[in-house]
Amino acid sequence: MKLQKIGELKLLQEIRKRFKTEDNGIILGIGDDAAVLVPQKENLLVTTDMMNEGIHFDLSFTSPFQLGFKLVSINVSDIMAMGGRPKYIFLNVALKSDADEDIFWDMYEGISKAMEMYSVKLAGGDLCAAKNDMVLSATVIGAAEKFITRSGAKAGDKIYITGTLGDSACGLALLQRLTDESKEIVNRIGAPGYRRICEKLYLRYHDTPTLRYIDFDTVEPLITRHLTPVARDSSEVAKYATSMIDVSDGLFIDLCRICDESNVGAKVYLDRIQISDEAKNAAEIMGLDPMRLAVSGGEDYELLFTAPAENNFKFQISNLKSQKITCIGEIMETDRIAVDKTGKKFPIKAEGYQHFGAP
Amino acid sequence: MKLQKIGELKLLQEIRKRFKTEDNGIILGIGDDAAVLVPQKENLLVTTDMMNEGIHFDLSFTSPFQLGFKLVSINVSDIMAMGGRPKYIFLNVALKSDADEDIFWDMYEGISKAMEMYSVKLAGGDLCAAKNDMVLSATVIGAAEKFITRSGAKAGDKIYITGTLGDSACGLALLQRLTDESKEIVNRIGAPGYRRICEKLYLRYHDTPTLRYIDFDTVEPLITRHLTPVARDSSEVAKYATSMIDVSDGLFIDLCRICDESNVGAKVYLDRIQISDEAKNAAEIMGLDPMRLAVSGGEDYELLFTAPAENNFKFQISNLKSQKITCIGEIMETDRIAVDKTGKKFPIKAEGYQHFGAP
Repeated sequence: MKLQKIGELKLLQEIRKRFKTEDNGIILGIGDDAAVLVPQKENLLVTTDMMNEGIHFDLSFTSPFQLGFKLVSINVSDIMAMGGRPKYIFLNVALKSDADEDIFWDMYEGISKAMEMYSVKLAGGDLCAAKNDMVLSATVIGAAEKFITRSGAKAGDKIYITGTLGDSACGLALLQRLTDESKEIVNRIGAPGYRRICEKLYLRYHDTPTLRYIDFDTVEPLITRHLTPVARDSSEVAKYATSMIDVSDGLFIDLCRICDESNVGAKVYLDRIQISDEAKNAAEIMGLDPMRLAVSGGEDYELLFTAPAENNFKFQISNLKSQKITCIGEIMETDRIAVDKTGKKFPIKAEGYQHFGAP
Repeated sequence: MKLQKIGELKLLQEIRKRFKTEDNGIILGIGDDAAVLVPQKENLLVTTDMMNEGIHFDLSFTSPFQLGFKLVSINVSDIMAMGGRPKYIFLNVALKSDADEDIFWDMYEGISKAMEMYSVKLAGGDLCAAKNDMVLSATVIGAAEKFITRSGAKAGDKIYITGTLGDSACGLALLQRLTDESKEIVNRIGAPGYRRICEKLYLRYHDTPTLRYIDFDTVEPLITRHLTPVARDSSEVAKYATSMIDVSDGLFIDLCRICDESNVGAKVYLDRIQISDEAKNAAEIMGLDPMRLAVSGGEDYELLFTAPAENNFKFQISNLKSQKITCIGEIMETDRIAVDKTGKKFPIKAEGYQHFGAP
């Protein structure tokens, strides 16, 4: 049924039923002028992020489920990047009136799945109509005894990154090249009832009629990283980090943010940057440079942080459960340089995604 | 200069400079992954509201200044409607890349003016590009020792409303009918440097070439109510109220919300509803029914509340500084009826604005 036949009030009633307030700090949830939360003993962390159709997402590349999941993840990731625990989420959703009810509920499935993963509770929001572009935004409130800013890096600190970089940018590049049939297959990834079937996928090659075959096992993890990213748990890392940020716009641009705020420089050893086999493989098939995707491609949502260069520290940190952590360089007094495996040096520039596309 | 020539980072730097964090509970404001606020001793109130181009506003009817002001007011109004004090605001702004920088800063002037009026501090937000529609959303965090919900109304309570109703709907109706030249004049209302000049304004009459003259003194307060509404201070009212809501979608729809949540009925005496002389005058010129605008027109942002029918209470409440408060009826066991001055009864229906336009 179209949303315009259902109406806002009925939708809100249904949402309220599905997201019942439980006794977890929410005194009053959805359904009044504002939510009421119990007073917090710790510092309060608040972040908000928007996702706009045609800018942050393309509905022919992503399913509503994936979109809902990602909305929660990117906001939770900001709380994690401060060393906090996410607690409550507030959602703003604007959909076109002629949108089908299914789109709405698929999106809510994705939102719910991510909320469950991060133990975040829905406490309020706003649902309204959109004229042309679908818009989603979320505000996440979290808590932290000790929080990690971007401004605490000191010369001599080591620079660390969780996981691998460039996967998300590689996933996006794949989506831009997959044939419509192949895109339909990958749009189901992660959705309820999804079963992994190794189907054949094809990429368009430039504007030629030539198609290139690409293996499902290569595509799946990259698309997953792009469409349904998972925020990294910072609880262990936060004990040691002097500064931290999540890689949303690209390694170099986000590292420059730490340098700017901390008033320091940085040296990055390019050969230490972890790139997944899938990203290397897919980049080769597409004729792209995987290192460029790793340093300038955004949306990996890995944690980039600095910590003192103590001998035992490195050992502790590399053994954190389920988190692969790599030391990729060190904080310098002023210079910002990247060094490749031959020893050649390049300046680190704030390259990455920027809205309004200024130079 | 166009926003695409300036870029997101430079804009953010400028915003950060203009909205410096002061020592008022914001430990860390704009410029990190999340804001950090000091722990609150009182209950935390959180609300979020979106404004979409083509749905909530029309850029040919409103100036960016007015839009920014209204965004803050409608969110603050939700905190007020809970009996809380607004403290922090988080803004999400999506503008088209080819938008001019001036639009952006005019909007921020409006936001700043409203923030100052309500003593609300900017603590964070997100700034990004929009494909077609400009989108604004805000999250306001407030505090309250005692909060007032929609669910506390009891049979026998009196129903009160602050100020006058229908002004905003009347202002919108005027905007829809003003000639382009006249609209240009009213678009400056409230903006910095605005001086009140009694210029001649003209309304188009249906689709005919006939123009009707309307006096500036009639138009100004109505347009102001619609474009730059001011949230009502609930601090005194909250001491007595058993339930409260702000009139955003219309008196009847919002009263029905109190009835639904409180599981009660209501009787409203139509002749007690306060309608301003300007609204009566403008409605007559436009051939509209002012009472219909008062009960079904939204966006007045007056406080609708219930309170026990104690003799001395009425006296106290009617003397609150700068707040004209009128008793318009009483809470009933189940029936929802409106009575006109002749004693004729009508059922109260949840009539007002609803997104996705369901019946």
